[in-house]
Amino acid sequence: MNRPKTPSLAVDLIIELTDRTGSQIVLIQRRNPPPGWALPGGFVDVGETLEAAARREALEETGLQVQLKVLLGCYSDPARDSRGHTVSAVYVAESRGQPRAGDDAAGIGVFDALAPPQLAFDHALILSDYRRYRETGMPAPLRG
Amino acid sequence: MNRPKTPSLAVDLIIELTDRTGSQIVLIQRRNPPPGWALPGGFVDVGETLEAAARREALEETGLQVQLKVLLGCYSDPARDSRGHTVSAVYVAESRGQPRAGDDAAGIGVFDALAPPQLAFDHALILSDYRRYRETGMPAPLRG
Repeated sequence: MNRPKTPSLAVDLIIELTDRTGSQIVLIQRRNPPPGWALPGGFVDVGETLEAAARREALEETGLQVQLKVLLGCYSDPARDSRGHTVSAVYVAESRGQPRAGDDAAGIGVFDALAPPQLAFDHALILSDYRRYRETGMPAPLRG
Repeated sequence: MNRPKTPSLAVDLIIELTDRTGSQIVLIQRRNPPPGWALPGGFVDVGETLEAAARREALEETGLQVQLKVLLGCYSDPARDSRGHTVSAVYVAESRGQPRAGDDAAGIGVFDALAPPQLAFDHALILSDYRRYRETGMPAPLRG
């Protein structure tokens, strides 16, 4: 049967720390290229749901157990990752406590979602959609 | 660099025919296994956005040019397609006119979304989420 080659599939998370004031979210400093700050996330395993992949990646990369709240949107621009076409399902999640960097991260930080640092990939666009979601309740707009 | 194997990626569409009364949507009768009625859809090409894949599949399978309205949700249960783990992004779209079956379809039909025929894959679940969306405006619930 026909199983054509399709884009790689990933998940990314906006982890809200609900035990802090303001709109504090977790970002990781990447150890691997491309460098810079990014949302926690990673590739989905065959046999794993998107939701399970998101919880697993959150735990691996931040040490946090998260509760997924909503699918913000899917990001699929072929140019969003220069390593190859990767589609990401992005979830908004909640957690509390102190994040700790996993092995894949050079560092970890907590930032105001309204004033994030410069971000890798299209993660600045994703956070822009997140801020709109916080204001309006609307998911990420369809694009392309 | 590391490009792990990830699930296959597909799109499916709930195409609302806005020039008809009621909640009329387009279903196709599959030519290839598994048999039965199903939402129009198919695999995403590398280099193609999800939105472009959805519009392309709608045109190929139904002859309809569609306007995408909203991402209903992502369906990622590893058991949802017995041919292999396939994650589907499902869009609600609008169109008008007469659908025509493409080469991949044995037939095409217009059905009331409230009373669909028996459906292949997890498409009955998807339509159940769609009816909830129509009633409440809520996207598909997170699962798994």
